[in-house]
Amino acid sequence: MTQRGDGAGPSCIDLGLEARETPCEVWIGGDLLGLGHGPLRADLGGWLAGRTLFVVTSEPLAELLGPHLEPLRGLAARVEQLCVPDGEAAKSLAVAGGLWDRMLGLGGKRDSRLVTFGGGSVGDLGGFVAACFLRGIEYAQVPTTLLAQVDAALGGKTGIDVAGHGKNLVGAFHQPRFVLSDTRLLATLPPAERRSGLVEAVKKAAVLDARVLAELEARLDALLAGDVPALDRAVVAATRMKLGVVAADAREAGARKSLNFGHTLGHAIEAELDFAGLRHGEAVAYGMLFACRLARAEGVLGDDLDQRLEAVLSRFELPPLPVDALSIEGLWSAMAKDKKATEAGLTWVLPTAAGHYTLRAVSGETVRRELAAFLAEPGPRAGRSRPRS
Amino acid sequence: MTQRGDGAGPSCIDLGLEARETPCEVWIGGDLLGLGHGPLRADLGGWLAGRTLFVVTSEPLAELLGPHLEPLRGLAARVEQLCVPDGEAAKSLAVAGGLWDRMLGLGGKRDSRLVTFGGGSVGDLGGFVAACFLRGIEYAQVPTTLLAQVDAALGGKTGIDVAGHGKNLVGAFHQPRFVLSDTRLLATLPPAERRSGLVEAVKKAAVLDARVLAELEARLDALLAGDVPALDRAVVAATRMKLGVVAADAREAGARKSLNFGHTLGHAIEAELDFAGLRHGEAVAYGMLFACRLARAEGVLGDDLDQRLEAVLSRFELPPLPVDALSIEGLWSAMAKDKKATEAGLTWVLPTAAGHYTLRAVSGETVRRELAAFLAEPGPRAGRSRPRS
Repeated sequence: MTQRGDGAGPSCIDLGLEARETPCEVWIGGDLLGLGHGPLRADLGGWLAGRTLFVVTSEPLAELLGPHLEPLRGLAARVEQLCVPDGEAAKSLAVAGGLWDRMLGLGGKRDSRLVTFGGGSVGDLGGFVAACFLRGIEYAQVPTTLLAQVDAALGGKTGIDVAGHGKNLVGAFHQPRFVLSDTRLLATLPPAERRSGLVEAVKKAAVLDARVLAELEARLDALLAGDVPALDRAVVAATRMKLGVVAADAREAGARKSLNFGHTLGHAIEAELDFAGLRHGEAVAYGMLFACRLARAEGVLGDDLDQRLEAVLSRFELPPLPVDALSIEGLWSAMAKDKKATEAGLTWVLPTAAGHYTLRAVSGETVRRELAAFLAEPGPRAGRSRPRS
Repeated sequence: MTQRGDGAGPSCIDLGLEARETPCEVWIGGDLLGLGHGPLRADLGGWLAGRTLFVVTSEPLAELLGPHLEPLRGLAARVEQLCVPDGEAAKSLAVAGGLWDRMLGLGGKRDSRLVTFGGGSVGDLGGFVAACFLRGIEYAQVPTTLLAQVDAALGGKTGIDVAGHGKNLVGAFHQPRFVLSDTRLLATLPPAERRSGLVEAVKKAAVLDARVLAELEARLDALLAGDVPALDRAVVAATRMKLGVVAADAREAGARKSLNFGHTLGHAIEAELDFAGLRHGEAVAYGMLFACRLARAEGVLGDDLDQRLEAVLSRFELPPLPVDALSIEGLWSAMAKDKKATEAGLTWVLPTAAGHYTLRAVSGETVRRELAAFLAEPGPRAGRSRPRS
């Protein structure tokens, strides 16, 4: 992994996976998409010259933010815009099949390009469509939400949902050729969307980098208020943390599992609420608090990270966890379907101290007991102390 | 690429791609599936112990050849058989989606295993299902036809068709952990199926290995008659040729394109006949003859390979090319949709001499002119000579 940039222009972090044939350049900065930065314009120009460009986006996004994409569209020989449903509804086999059919009808070739322009759902779907179209074409992620910029657009995970079973259960690892995180796009983001994205930044820092966690704690007011320079720094820090893990373990055989901190219960909550009750980051926030509780119960947490996360998350003004719509058995069953589960059972990412974690199989008895206690008092409360085990 | 085996037992060729996390072992031999060979039994036993095994096959195959698979099934903790339609009908998004749904319902996990048991269609579909299930699970190919043993099961190309557009237009590169080519299974193969498989072996030898081409010419009567030791040698030779190319170029960026010899027109013929008129190998045979004609027209063919291929293929007693159902414009349009086409046009694999080839863009004018002449006299005729250009 190498980083380019002189501090004044946008940052470029190049993921140097040995296993890949092509580089993956992640660019972060305000007004990136204006393409005023010469090196970025040159790289994108070379990539798009003479090509058909498929832009996968949603209609509301195309209307709200489409003009930002004009300079990039101007670099291709031909642009075909493919609109998909907004949000998680985009991530179905039927939508993917429809795009493949249209791309073939429009004469898409192996060296055609695809750009996703939207949040995590558009990126997950578009990346999967690129991964399988003619057995894989190059693509770029242009994430328009903070959540996608700090997490979903990075690392090459793509996928769709399978109705009745859960999220991202069919997919592919397919690294984007470019990720363009234009932090100016975050200005129009609703505060709740920004909060959901910040949870993912906090999640990474909590188990990977204590210094970044301290920075996020210190700048939280500015971040929650949407201060662009603060967001810019947070996106760069989150990108560095994530790509560091991905470069070491692209296929999630080991270290990459750390990124699932808070996601085991978080995904189960989302599934139990039919992906309609909480935002992804909100569910993950509750998942992190529960993982901290499990870490305490297992006796592996050695500092006050649980109290720090409670304090941080209490400032997020999360919607309450709808406990009446959740049951221990329902959550347990949803966790068993988690795609990170193996035939031997679930492995939990448990924090051991700020910036550190361990992977651990926890007995079903312990999980159910702690889950019962957690559902009885699920919210983050600033300063609430828990007994040390 | 390394080869194991002492000459007495089955041959094992290990594809040593740097880019892969797991090895790909290709085993070839009679009665492989009896698992009497200790090293093979040990490798498969370690791979399947404690796992759920999904067997993807078709009902007619399960009935005809299923008992051969019993020893392998016995190594897994649990076996779930998933039957799909016979032949190309298996390769649809609907069938793939149905399998993912069933595998999730049956509790499939990331470390579950999948084995395809059938011809090329079952292998292409099953490999694609394995490639995308939970973003990729390990799988093995157990090809039951000569065509699949010498070609389709090797090299990690998986995929499905898109209705109205053509074959293998959606898919993934996903190397199998094992390929088990049990040549005893070929005993029950209809002669026409054997012929279709031999075309693929001839195809590889024609552009990759003059020595193998001479061997195939010398043993053709035994091969066409289904002599198992002769078929065994041919499968080993074809496997070595194919894996040599794949090891050098897994993603088809360069050398792997040589394997498309005869496939540009071959695929177009199949598409124009709605995949119902000729077997794959039969269409490829005509495709090879046409590529030889193009090579002559372009002045790149330097020996008598075209006449040798005509002579070989005349012994195959191919069904005639149904020229009344084909048109130059239809074939041209189908070739333009070929997934090997780039935005710049089609690249042809043209033979330059026995065992050698070149990649060449040929003008549309030349292709159409030669196609018109070819459709007027499309059959292989032993000893027919063509004017040297």
